[in-house]
Amino acid sequence: MGVIHRFREEGKSCLWEGARTRPYSGEGYEGTMQWLIGKPEKAPNFALRYFEIQPSKSSHLEQHEHDHGVIIFRGKAKVRMGEEEQLALPGDIVYIPPNEIHQFTNVGEGTLGFFCIIPAKRGADTD
Amino acid sequence: MGVIHRFREEGKSCLWEGARTRPYSGEGYEGTMQWLIGKPEKAPNFALRYFEIQPSKSSHLEQHEHDHGVIIFRGKAKVRMGEEEQLALPGDIVYIPPNEIHQFTNVGEGTLGFFCIIPAKRGADTD
Repeated sequence: MGVIHRFREEGKSCLWEGARTRPYSGEGYEGTMQWLIGKPEKAPNFALRYFEIQPSKSSHLEQHEHDHGVIIFRGKAKVRMGEEEQLALPGDIVYIPPNEIHQFTNVGEGTLGFFCIIPAKRGADTD
Repeated sequence: MGVIHRFREEGKSCLWEGARTRPYSGEGYEGTMQWLIGKPEKAPNFALRYFEIQPSKSSHLEQHEHDHGVIIFRGKAKVRMGEEEQLALPGDIVYIPPNEIHQFTNVGEGTLGFFCIIPAKRGADTD
């Protein structure tokens, strides 16, 4: 049976009913992410997570075999892909192909929030 | 190399730079959808599309082997999953597992817009 995870805003945070909150460590901080679609939904093909990054903080600089589809939902990101950097704003879609070096930095004044799609099958059960 | 498809609003429509607009037929109408991540991005694992449905219109009632991850972006949807119907609002996440009957109806006054994730490998190159 399908499922709906209902969205609500609580203060500056975006929250989803029935989502699983998991630890997430970025560049110089320990935060959390929310799993919205994944193993509990028995999703065989892809997973969906939501990340929040506070102003001036960054995700870790990463490079791995699986790809990312990202939808910016809140705030202002500087996106590093390979040797390039670009700004991304709410509604923008970012595709990071397999093995591309990438990092998201919050360059706005409020929380940076984005959805991130990953394949269900990947080398390690990481980001 | 990664790519950013930049978002803009034009009147009541949401548009993305570099996205491919493709025909989409719903229940009693011919519309379009936008492909945001797919073959042109060489995405091997998943695809991302954006659908707009006008007030009182519906997507086709469908049942197929591939699953859907949906993020409601604009408007108000009635979501049929199996024999059940539920309302979904902006920010809500809908997961439709493989082989679940499903249909999205716009029950609001404005455009219903949603993102839809599908696996890259699926039985037919359809919705």
